[in-house]
Amino acid sequence: MKLYYDLLSQPSRAIYIFLKLNKIPFESNVVKLGRLQHLKSSFKDINRFKRVPCIVDNDFHLAESVAIFRYIVATNPTIADHWYPKDAKERARVDEYLEWQHNNTRVACAGYFRVAYMLPLLQRKPPSKEKINKAKGHMVKVLDLIEDVWLQDESKRFLATNEISFADLMAACEIEQPRIANYNPFEGRPNLTKWYEQVKLKTNPVYDDASAYAYNLIGTMDRSRLYKILKLFLSYRVKYI
Amino acid sequence: MKLYYDLLSQPSRAIYIFLKLNKIPFESNVVKLGRLQHLKSSFKDINRFKRVPCIVDNDFHLAESVAIFRYIVATNPTIADHWYPKDAKERARVDEYLEWQHNNTRVACAGYFRVAYMLPLLQRKPPSKEKINKAKGHMVKVLDLIEDVWLQDESKRFLATNEISFADLMAACEIEQPRIANYNPFEGRPNLTKWYEQVKLKTNPVYDDASAYAYNLIGTMDRSRLYKILKLFLSYRVKYI
Repeated sequence: MKLYYDLLSQPSRAIYIFLKLNKIPFESNVVKLGRLQHLKSSFKDINRFKRVPCIVDNDFHLAESVAIFRYIVATNPTIADHWYPKDAKERARVDEYLEWQHNNTRVACAGYFRVAYMLPLLQRKPPSKEKINKAKGHMVKVLDLIEDVWLQDESKRFLATNEISFADLMAACEIEQPRIANYNPFEGRPNLTKWYEQVKLKTNPVYDDASAYAYNLIGTMDRSRLYKILKLFLSYRVKYI
Repeated sequence: MKLYYDLLSQPSRAIYIFLKLNKIPFESNVVKLGRLQHLKSSFKDINRFKRVPCIVDNDFHLAESVAIFRYIVATNPTIADHWYPKDAKERARVDEYLEWQHNNTRVACAGYFRVAYMLPLLQRKPPSKEKINKAKGHMVKVLDLIEDVWLQDESKRFLATNEISFADLMAACEIEQPRIANYNPFEGRPNLTKWYEQVKLKTNPVYDDASAYAYNLIGTMDRSRLYKILKLFLSYRVKYI
């Protein structure tokens, strides 16, 4: 199986960490989002939606991280049950989060990251305070729902179930992305902090290794490094957009 | 199993039609969105996210239409395979659409419906042309992707596979919602038109019965009936928001 990904992309990280933790072999194909390689017309032959992550298993092309996860579970029967429990109710709890996150965690955290980090880079101007505040307000609401609703049940240690599942990987990768844009999602959220520590305990050193590139960008908003990244973006922008 | 739903809600219709077509018994609980019954604090005990559709199976509470669909398939082994194929690749194709739709079909069509129909109702003023045009632009892009990418493969008659699946039900209910706000998604899209006819052929009379309430609202934007609905909304708004 070939995996196309960029470790800067949150769902890419989740799939990559899941494969590594479960020792599932794959051919690694990095698609640099920062160089807009996903928008090259040749990449359309890999994924018709021009996004990462995606896989090619022999001649079977598949997009959408959550669909990829389910396909990997279905075709690798040795994966430990807790990642996606066979029990219908336990599995439904994992599914409930995986479906919920698209228009909540994903839209909110990636939305903030986009407005506060990516767009200023692409548009060569400081981020709009009004847009940042709107995106932040939405993100705060979603993170509070995770703190107060998803993580309020003391009978389970993880988001959906009592053992770590793919829901936790998807959530952790998404929730820490805004740190790059100088927002700390854990501050004032004790349940979220405790949960994130548990996720890392269960997944390290793989988790930290996969996140090293993203960690390295934290705070780059304020540094001259931003301009280097910016120049790189612009040089490729003309070519591919 | 108890189903909480409103046939005005697109994912509610998809689940309702799926249950009826498969003759799965359920206790019907209508939650009138137009009367904001989903926002009543007592409804939080049914679904902690205060949304429809949701189910209660004995003491098991579950939200998120796609997760509900998978739970119903897992707990009802007699459901015909084509709705959610057991073959890993076929199932992955259905999953791919079900995951993709959240931030594409759903956000775009429900977004347009909200801006062009619901918000003007709630805010007691005509819709903002700028906002409508923005929402319409996004919706057109998504509908074109369905026309040109999802439906371009002539080897399969439906969205994800060659037989009807739950992906088609979710898509059909979502895609026709903007008709209420006077946008015809089928105009100039022959693949979409043909596919929609196939979906109806496979699901009628259940599909049309479940959609009767929504059909009845088509074009109400221009009619005095709007004001009746508006009054109803407002009378409940003060009470529950």
